[in-house]
Amino acid sequence: MADTSSRTKARQPRGFVDRSPEDIRATEKMTAAIREVFELYGFEPVDQPMIEYTDALGKFLPDQDRPNEGVFSFQDDDEQWLSLRYDLTAPLARYVAENYERLPKPYRSYRTGWVFRNEKPGPGRFRQFMQFDADTVGTPGVAADAEMAMMMADVMEALGIKRGDYVIRVNNRKVLDGVLEAIGLGGDENIGRRLTVLRAIDKLDKFGPEGVRLLLGPGRWDGGREGEGDFTKGAGLDDDGIAMISKCLSVASSSYLISDEYGDVSSATGPDDEWIQVDDGKQVLYDNEGVIGRLELEMPSNALLQQGLSELEVIANLVASAGYGTKRIRIDPSVVRGLEYYTGPVYEAELLAEIPNEEGIIVRFGSVGGGGRYDGLVSRFGGEPVPATGFSIGVSRLMTALKNLGKLDMSDVIAPVVVLVMDKDTESLGRHQKMVAKLRQAGIRAEMYLGGAGMKAQLKYADRRGSPCAVIQGGDERAKGEVQIKDLIEGKRLSEEITDNVAWREGRPAQVTVAEGELVEAVRRILDAQTKDRAGGK
Amino acid sequence: MADTSSRTKARQPRGFVDRSPEDIRATEKMTAAIREVFELYGFEPVDQPMIEYTDALGKFLPDQDRPNEGVFSFQDDDEQWLSLRYDLTAPLARYVAENYERLPKPYRSYRTGWVFRNEKPGPGRFRQFMQFDADTVGTPGVAADAEMAMMMADVMEALGIKRGDYVIRVNNRKVLDGVLEAIGLGGDENIGRRLTVLRAIDKLDKFGPEGVRLLLGPGRWDGGREGEGDFTKGAGLDDDGIAMISKCLSVASSSYLISDEYGDVSSATGPDDEWIQVDDGKQVLYDNEGVIGRLELEMPSNALLQQGLSELEVIANLVASAGYGTKRIRIDPSVVRGLEYYTGPVYEAELLAEIPNEEGIIVRFGSVGGGGRYDGLVSRFGGEPVPATGFSIGVSRLMTALKNLGKLDMSDVIAPVVVLVMDKDTESLGRHQKMVAKLRQAGIRAEMYLGGAGMKAQLKYADRRGSPCAVIQGGDERAKGEVQIKDLIEGKRLSEEITDNVAWREGRPAQVTVAEGELVEAVRRILDAQTKDRAGGK
Repeated sequence: MADTSSRTKARQPRGFVDRSPEDIRATEKMTAAIREVFELYGFEPVDQPMIEYTDALGKFLPDQDRPNEGVFSFQDDDEQWLSLRYDLTAPLARYVAENYERLPKPYRSYRTGWVFRNEKPGPGRFRQFMQFDADTVGTPGVAADAEMAMMMADVMEALGIKRGDYVIRVNNRKVLDGVLEAIGLGGDENIGRRLTVLRAIDKLDKFGPEGVRLLLGPGRWDGGREGEGDFTKGAGLDDDGIAMISKCLSVASSSYLISDEYGDVSSATGPDDEWIQVDDGKQVLYDNEGVIGRLELEMPSNALLQQGLSELEVIANLVASAGYGTKRIRIDPSVVRGLEYYTGPVYEAELLAEIPNEEGIIVRFGSVGGGGRYDGLVSRFGGEPVPATGFSIGVSRLMTALKNLGKLDMSDVIAPVVVLVMDKDTESLGRHQKMVAKLRQAGIRAEMYLGGAGMKAQLKYADRRGSPCAVIQGGDERAKGEVQIKDLIEGKRLSEEITDNVAWREGRPAQVTVAEGELVEAVRRILDAQTKDRAGGK
Repeated sequence: MADTSSRTKARQPRGFVDRSPEDIRATEKMTAAIREVFELYGFEPVDQPMIEYTDALGKFLPDQDRPNEGVFSFQDDDEQWLSLRYDLTAPLARYVAENYERLPKPYRSYRTGWVFRNEKPGPGRFRQFMQFDADTVGTPGVAADAEMAMMMADVMEALGIKRGDYVIRVNNRKVLDGVLEAIGLGGDENIGRRLTVLRAIDKLDKFGPEGVRLLLGPGRWDGGREGEGDFTKGAGLDDDGIAMISKCLSVASSSYLISDEYGDVSSATGPDDEWIQVDDGKQVLYDNEGVIGRLELEMPSNALLQQGLSELEVIANLVASAGYGTKRIRIDPSVVRGLEYYTGPVYEAELLAEIPNEEGIIVRFGSVGGGGRYDGLVSRFGGEPVPATGFSIGVSRLMTALKNLGKLDMSDVIAPVVVLVMDKDTESLGRHQKMVAKLRQAGIRAEMYLGGAGMKAQLKYADRRGSPCAVIQGGDERAKGEVQIKDLIEGKRLSEEITDNVAWREGRPAQVTVAEGELVEAVRRILDAQTKDRAGGK
């Protein structure tokens, strides 16, 4: 196994990546914006460690004393299995179960951090990635779910995503479960098939309505035709069942063809509401009440479905009261979320912007986060039932989207001023060090060049760092008590002007010589001029 | 093994802890302050994932194909061993080795994150904890080390630790290695014994000079007398060797008895220098040059020791040039740092403040971070030699210290305003929801009560959350288009005044009724008044 030759090779396991300064700064900025929204909604930060008992995460393989392969696991000294968390919800459930008595209830909390999946990595799929979650534990009222949907909308806008460029879609598992019950898929004995149906519907974005129909029925060949590519076994529903589910999904998703014929639109005609152009040129209003009304009319009714619809009704009302129109939050029966543990409302934040995907094809970016009600997860630890709802933002994925949308402007990060080292005797070093210290005391990012190279290479280093300016004091300047400051940004511009004939503008001097005592002010003048240039849209 | 009864128990493995809102906020505040200093010094954020190949971390057991027990390890699909990082330096070394060509050199970077130790946990010792590191890779010049010492000092002050309440102590491994060579412990064959000596010296704080002498010689019984407690085997040095090392250590650490007899103190008499009261009532100046001079005079000389001392000389000069006196940075031969991989200057940040320890005994808090030069760590991966230096701050440990010192004031975090829910019909909920939305739009933390309890329990909830005020609209107020706002802080104060006879002051009304349209302004008035009260030192 661990042979000596490979021992010293610098390499990374697949699915793990280093993060660049840009990514780290962007993540900081993003998570700060998200945090601010969560705080505004009265949520408190609380977090759990990355390692938990495998059983506390619910990740033992069924009927085996071995952890699920999807999680990274190892045994502790006392032989008990530990696992790295694969999401932030399971550890929260453990935390709440352990501390239920002393927590204020309902308990609002948020957390961010890395999670781990022991899965095959792929493009855009990592084995370590960051999530940012908010959860309300201890209330069955769907007002908590409505709040989650509104909070997700506010997060999108806090990140600079314009209204209309995203949508929060809301559904209720009970609606679909009601339909499944009606077509004979109710009861514990059908858990497996129901999950297959959920996962099929979850592929709507990826495979379209026809692909989903195949997955609901006999199954689907990846290549599109029988025998081509891999085969995914379907849920085996009959034609009536497939038709019923397809109809349920298409109420909102296939063409957004919601008109006012099923509901009262007069209550929802603000500027925040979504008008949709339909084929005949008419515009119709996307109407949450209408979607609910149509489901009520067109789906086979039972108690579960009725309960689901009335919960959606409450959510639609609450978000409308708070001024969130259908541009922001839409009731949409095609949202299911893949996880088996959801028991009620589910919601998903979708970016509508069209962005190149990993293969360079322009596609709707799709989901950047979502969640739902998971009433069974905490009570798994025993004790009284603890209803809960929450959502998770895929931070790494959302960052990719924001980067592509140009929403992560980092031009306010200024690289350090570099003080060149002209003589390497201790006394000269001391003088250079003093200059750096003065700049730093004045709040200016600065560094003394610490390598062994000559002046030309030092300027190249400064250029590579993106430094705004370089400070030089050779023997001549020292004798006169002066320093030379090179404006590296302006210098570059001027030299481009000369070589590339770019539009001439009156420049600053690319280099100034000032008395040593005026170093800080002179550097600041250059930095200010550069800031002004950037603001001028150069 | 994993029996069914324990599967659903909510519990944590030993050595792992959940973090409270206060801890998370304090950590945020601390890391932001540290980051600002690192950025000012021209360092860039870069970070590595938490999982690496075990061999890349250098953590296989010697002569075995099994990972070291101190790390959490598991095998990948292809049977290769992976480990959770145990510090931030080993992954950085892998990163630099992998990307050396394309990095600017010297390469300045910083990173923060969780690290994991598969060790026996104890009071204040966790198996997951946070570090914050800065490193300069690619230069052998000790100007880089001098900068690290200054940066650590700046970090301490940025965290609110007053000058004089901390000190950065600097030494050079070459000094001690020179002494060890002189007493016959040089060469590869003595690596093990040298490490035992280092670890003995590292216990100076814990066991005092006499304890260290025992560890350098025959060994030490934990109970203080032969046969009492555990026995730690010593390095087996003879009396001369022990005397020599003890002398080396005592140059600075035993009594700070540095006077001007060994060096020129005139160069170091700023307000930033440390005067020390000695036994006879005289004050002497802690003089870095003096320490170096005394080592030169009193230690057996060889090339290694000479090189070590001249490097310390450069460091002492550079920090003095930049205005850092001995109040902040002291050359101190008793600092060794326990890690075997250091090759040159080592440094340690020590809190001098006296704080109760886990057992409630008042002790000097001691080390909160440190580091040194590790010239061999990157070149372990082959290729050219890559000198490097850096330090690590123990974030979790430092936070404990700052909390005890009262330096983590979090009184600016205001709990959310709670809008009580008086009627639970959808229409009333909608009205309450609208109030919350308005408060949030005005930037005021607010939440609608989401539980099922009555008014009294809701007020208790608001109190438990520490809410500044509660908003109430029952049927009567609704009919009049009004809302009632209870100032919960003032209410508490007034009731304490009545029951506890605390000093009377003219109060605000603890409750106001305003028109619904004035909700936001009225809440803001209350929040402002509370802020003023807090600032008044109530």
